[in-house]
Amino acid sequence: MDNRRTFLAAAGAVLAACATKKDVEADAEPSRIGKPLKAYGERAPFEKIARLTPTTKQMENGATRTPLADLHGIITPSSLHFERHHSGVPEIDPAKHQLMIHGMVDRPLVFTMDELKRLPSVSRIHFVECSGNSGSEWGAKSAPDVQRGFGLASCSEWTGVPLALLLAEAGVQKGATWLHAEGADACKMTRSIPIDKGLKDILLVYGQNGESLRPEQGYPLRLLVPGWEGNVNVKWVHRIKVSDQPQYARDETAHYTDLMADGKARIFTFDMDAKSVITNPSGGQKIGSQGLFEIRGLAWSGRGRIEKVEVTLDGGKTWKPAQVDEVRHRMAFTRFRMPWKFDGTETVIASRAIDETGYVQPLRDDLIEVRGKNSQYHNNAVKFWKVNADGSVKNVEA
Amino acid sequence: MDNRRTFLAAAGAVLAACATKKDVEADAEPSRIGKPLKAYGERAPFEKIARLTPTTKQMENGATRTPLADLHGIITPSSLHFERHHSGVPEIDPAKHQLMIHGMVDRPLVFTMDELKRLPSVSRIHFVECSGNSGSEWGAKSAPDVQRGFGLASCSEWTGVPLALLLAEAGVQKGATWLHAEGADACKMTRSIPIDKGLKDILLVYGQNGESLRPEQGYPLRLLVPGWEGNVNVKWVHRIKVSDQPQYARDETAHYTDLMADGKARIFTFDMDAKSVITNPSGGQKIGSQGLFEIRGLAWSGRGRIEKVEVTLDGGKTWKPAQVDEVRHRMAFTRFRMPWKFDGTETVIASRAIDETGYVQPLRDDLIEVRGKNSQYHNNAVKFWKVNADGSVKNVEA
Repeated sequence: MDNRRTFLAAAGAVLAACATKKDVEADAEPSRIGKPLKAYGERAPFEKIARLTPTTKQMENGATRTPLADLHGIITPSSLHFERHHSGVPEIDPAKHQLMIHGMVDRPLVFTMDELKRLPSVSRIHFVECSGNSGSEWGAKSAPDVQRGFGLASCSEWTGVPLALLLAEAGVQKGATWLHAEGADACKMTRSIPIDKGLKDILLVYGQNGESLRPEQGYPLRLLVPGWEGNVNVKWVHRIKVSDQPQYARDETAHYTDLMADGKARIFTFDMDAKSVITNPSGGQKIGSQGLFEIRGLAWSGRGRIEKVEVTLDGGKTWKPAQVDEVRHRMAFTRFRMPWKFDGTETVIASRAIDETGYVQPLRDDLIEVRGKNSQYHNNAVKFWKVNADGSVKNVEA
Repeated sequence: MDNRRTFLAAAGAVLAACATKKDVEADAEPSRIGKPLKAYGERAPFEKIARLTPTTKQMENGATRTPLADLHGIITPSSLHFERHHSGVPEIDPAKHQLMIHGMVDRPLVFTMDELKRLPSVSRIHFVECSGNSGSEWGAKSAPDVQRGFGLASCSEWTGVPLALLLAEAGVQKGATWLHAEGADACKMTRSIPIDKGLKDILLVYGQNGESLRPEQGYPLRLLVPGWEGNVNVKWVHRIKVSDQPQYARDETAHYTDLMADGKARIFTFDMDAKSVITNPSGGQKIGSQGLFEIRGLAWSGRGRIEKVEVTLDGGKTWKPAQVDEVRHRMAFTRFRMPWKFDGTETVIASRAIDETGYVQPLRDDLIEVRGKNSQYHNNAVKFWKVNADGSVKNVEA
C-alpha cells in the first residue's frame, strides 16, 4: 500500500514534527470514572480564548473582538461573536417584546415574539462585519494580530422571518423607498435602509447557531441584513417605519460614513466588499518548529459567494489558489487552506479573496488611491504577515 | 403595490394571529443603559431549554437528549449536543494528550495535539446519531415528545485531520482490513471500524462549532465517522490500532447489535439510514390559536445528502414536498418547512426523508416486517403526530 504514503509528500512537506516510536508508550490518562451527565454543557477548563475587551470606563459603549485566529471552520461560537453596543445590552423579556411595522403601509402591524415564531422562516449562514473592522490597517498604527485588526467580524447560522413577508402583509404604499429600523436599547439605535434590500433578503432573526439569539446580538429579535455593514443589522429591533426618505440618523451621519481625501464623506455605503485574512500563521503567533504547517484563513464577501482565494508566499509577486470548501454559503465566512513547508526562510504571506462577481480584494495602496487615508470604515485591503526565521509572525504594516 | 400582499395568502393561510393597530402604542422597553461588554457571552436568563437528564444514580453511564423541538436551523448548540457516556467525562489536559497509531503499519506514530493541529485539516457539518435513538418508537412505550424519542441526534460543524493522511504516513501494511479505535475514558471504549471507511472520510476532530471540542464530546480529540452510528465516533480517542480482523469488543457484541425476530443478531450495522421527524408541531406542544403555523422538522441520512422531504397532512394517504434549503450538506441535518393553516380540524401529520441514493424513510410496519420488534437500535421509521382540535399534539403510537 505504498501508494497511500504519498499524501504528505505530495504536499511538498514532511511530518518532521511527528514522533515515531517503535515501542509505543503506555497511555498516561487516568482510569478514574469521569464527570457525570449535565443538562447544559460548558467548554473545557483548559480553554481560555475570549473576546478582546477594551480598557475603558464606558463598557456600555464600545466593542469586543472575536479571536478569529483561535477558531476553527466557519461558525463563530455565539459566546465569542463580536459585540458593538452604543448604550449597553438591554435585558428584554421576550414575552413582552413586540415588533411594530408602520409608516407608509396600508395596515400597521404589531407582532409578539410568539406570533413571529410561527410564521414561515428561513435559516442562513451569514457573516456580520462592523464597517469599522480593520480600520487600524490604513497605516501607521496597524494592529499586531488578527483579533485586534479583524475581530469585528463573525459568522453564525441565523434563523428568522423574511421581512418581505411582513411588509407584504402590512401593504407597502406607493412611493415608499426607505425603512427606518429602530432598536429597543437605551439610545434607540436607528438606521435607514433602502426598502429594496428589505424586500430582497433581510431577515428578522430570533435564532443564532441553533439556540435563541444571544442578548448581546439583539435578543430577542434583530435585523439581519446579509452582506451589509454591521451597524444596519439593528439589534433588539422593535420598530420598522416605512418612509419615502432616509432618516439621516446619528449613526449614518456623525458615524458610519467614509471621509474621503477631499474632505467630503460617502454616506450609505452598505455593502461589505470581498475580504480575507490569513489567521494561521498570523501576527503574534509563533510556529514552534520547522516542517509542514497548514496556512489557514477566512474569506467573505457581502456581494455573494467566495469563488476563489489566492495565497502569496513571496510578498505578493505570485499568487496560488488555496483550497476552499466545495459547499460554500453566500455572504458567509469561507475557510481556505494551503499546505506549506516552513523551512526557516523569512517569508511574507498574504491572501486575497475573489467573489462570485469577479471582484478581487485590493491591495492597500490601491484602496488608498481611491479612498484616501482619512476613512475609518470599509477597509478590505489585503493583509501581509511576515514569518521570521525563528517562526515568529508580524504585521508587515505594524 | 397590492401584488406584494399575496405572499401569505398564497400559502393558503391568514395572519389571524397578528394584532392590527391604527394607533400604535408607545414602546414599553426601559430606556436604561444596558449591560456592559463581556469577554465570553452567555444565553439570556429567560432561556431555559436543556438536555434531558435521566433520573439515575449512575450519572456517569447514561445519556442526555437534545431538545430538538426547541432549536432552530441545523446547528445544535454545543452546550445542548446529546451525550452518551459509558464511564463519565474524563478531564484531559490537551498538553498531555497523545494519539498513537500502531499495529499493522510500517511506522508506528505518536502525535501530540499541537502536532495534529498544524496538519492539513477540513471542516464539515455532520450529524451524530446514537443507533439507539428512537428505540422507544418500536411499539408499546413510545415517547411523548421529540426530545425523548429523537434527542439522541445532534449536528455540528466539526474540524479536524483526515485519518487517511495519518494512515498514509504510518504506512498501512498489506492485509490490513480493520481499525480498533480506543478512547481514553475509564472504560477505554473501543470499536472496530473497517479500514476502508477510515481511508474514505473519517476525521480526527478537535474543533466543534468554531471552538475546541467540548469535554462531553471527546475533548481534546474524537473520531468523527460521518453517517455512521454514534458509538463508533470514539471520544477522547488516544489509540488506533490497524488490524486484519475486528476486535469484537464489548460495545459491538453485548451492545450495539440488532436482535432480529429469529433470535439472531446483526452486527456491525454502521450506516444510519435516512430519517426525519416533524419538530413543530410535535408531541407535547400546543398550537396556541388557529391560523398560519409553519410545520418544521429535521431530516438526515448517513448515506449522503437529503434530496427531498415529504409531509403528509392526512395520516399518510397523500404526501407533498416540503421546502428544503438550497445549500444542503452531506450526512448533516437538513431543515424542512411547510406553511400550514391550522383550522381546528384534528390532523395526523408526519414527514418522510428521501436521500440522494433514492432511499425512502420507511413506515414503522414495513420496518418491523424486516427487522422484528426485538431490536433497540436503528429505528428510522416515519413518526406520526396527531394535532387535536384544541391544538394539543400527541405521539400517535404513544
